[in-house]
Amino acid sequence: MAGAEAVSGKLYGLGVGPGDPELLTLKAVRLIAAADVIAYPAPAGGADSMARRIAALHIPDGKIEIVIATPMRPETFPADDVYDAYADEIAGHLRDGHDVAVLCEGDPFLYGSFMYLFGRLAGEFPTEVVPGVSSLGACAARAGVPLVSRNQVLAIVPAPLSESDLETRIAVADAVAVMKVGRHLAKIRRVLTKLDRLEGAVYIERATLGDELVCPLASVTADTAPYFSMILVRRTEAVDA
Amino acid sequence: MAGAEAVSGKLYGLGVGPGDPELLTLKAVRLIAAADVIAYPAPAGGADSMARRIAALHIPDGKIEIVIATPMRPETFPADDVYDAYADEIAGHLRDGHDVAVLCEGDPFLYGSFMYLFGRLAGEFPTEVVPGVSSLGACAARAGVPLVSRNQVLAIVPAPLSESDLETRIAVADAVAVMKVGRHLAKIRRVLTKLDRLEGAVYIERATLGDELVCPLASVTADTAPYFSMILVRRTEAVDA
Repeated sequence: MAGAEAVSGKLYGLGVGPGDPELLTLKAVRLIAAADVIAYPAPAGGADSMARRIAALHIPDGKIEIVIATPMRPETFPADDVYDAYADEIAGHLRDGHDVAVLCEGDPFLYGSFMYLFGRLAGEFPTEVVPGVSSLGACAARAGVPLVSRNQVLAIVPAPLSESDLETRIAVADAVAVMKVGRHLAKIRRVLTKLDRLEGAVYIERATLGDELVCPLASVTADTAPYFSMILVRRTEAVDA
Repeated sequence: MAGAEAVSGKLYGLGVGPGDPELLTLKAVRLIAAADVIAYPAPAGGADSMARRIAALHIPDGKIEIVIATPMRPETFPADDVYDAYADEIAGHLRDGHDVAVLCEGDPFLYGSFMYLFGRLAGEFPTEVVPGVSSLGACAARAGVPLVSRNQVLAIVPAPLSESDLETRIAVADAVAVMKVGRHLAKIRRVLTKLDRLEGAVYIERATLGDELVCPLASVTADTAPYFSMILVRRTEAVDA
């Protein structure tokens, strides 16, 4: 065919860090300012997007914004049809030559929902993933808990696993980060008590945000926690530095 | 005693990220500019400090700088007397009321040497750890390998572990990041071959730096690798996103 072929835009998956807007990277700030379209997840039903809130200071007026309304019921997640539809919408902008920056809480490739868009779009469009400060490093920093050193093994374990699965995984690791605590708090407490590792376990909620909470897990009496919470467990002998 | 008591300075452990200077956080940039004293590790023997190189653009002239010359022989690491001496030197500055920023490659509490100073100084002086982009997220981003999603377990495993230990750890995890590859490359290749997980394993060297290398581990024929290298392993069924 005659004529210049249209050049498609570039897709960016930008880690915006755990919550404190100052933990954005210089690169994320630059790419947010330069992108034509900014997309970010928000809980379906109208609640605020945490990713957008983190980056808000750096989003100039007049950008096209796409709210990726994400179903929060764990049994339906990830909703394939939801991501298909958003991937189509983003693909339209990319075909028009627009760069699209997708904002991701924490790091895009550590339990980030960006991977569902990456899987649908990276084969067709130029794509760059920009790593961000993960909630893992942020929780450890705020709790004052050096996670692993030398030849220690760190296991990152999602709380929704079964009680026996959690027990097996935690028993063999030098250090454990339990993610997505939410309604699984009582179960985790039972497992750690059984393994005699409750003492020294630290509970962290909303790390690096203004209403952050850091305390010994043993002092937490509730049976559920917010989604943005984590439990860090180390062997006592690992405490020396 | 009469008279005002001296107010001590504050100790900062600043993650400066995996290598690309643009992956510094806004917070690290601000604190580097404001600190009176900048300290950073460098290999004993005079080689460059990677942490300083990452942050160089943001270190104003005229700062007091402390090079923490770090023995690189694994059998002597961490050298307690070395860290005792540097902790004393840093404590002197803190007592004089100077803020001291210690630059750390990647994230300070994920296999970072800052924890040895933290263990010696945080009890006595106000201390803040600022998380950084870890090599883990950076390697995954550069390799285009979403590490874990949903309820998958990620194990972070140092390569110096014994062959049987590596085998046990890798066998049970959905995804594995093998750190500190260095002279253990041949051993890791044997373990992954035995577990039938060589295919799909990705080798990453110097992620986010100009001379970065990303390739299938199966295509790497050398038996040793640089210290700043990593191997990412996922189950094949985890590839769908």
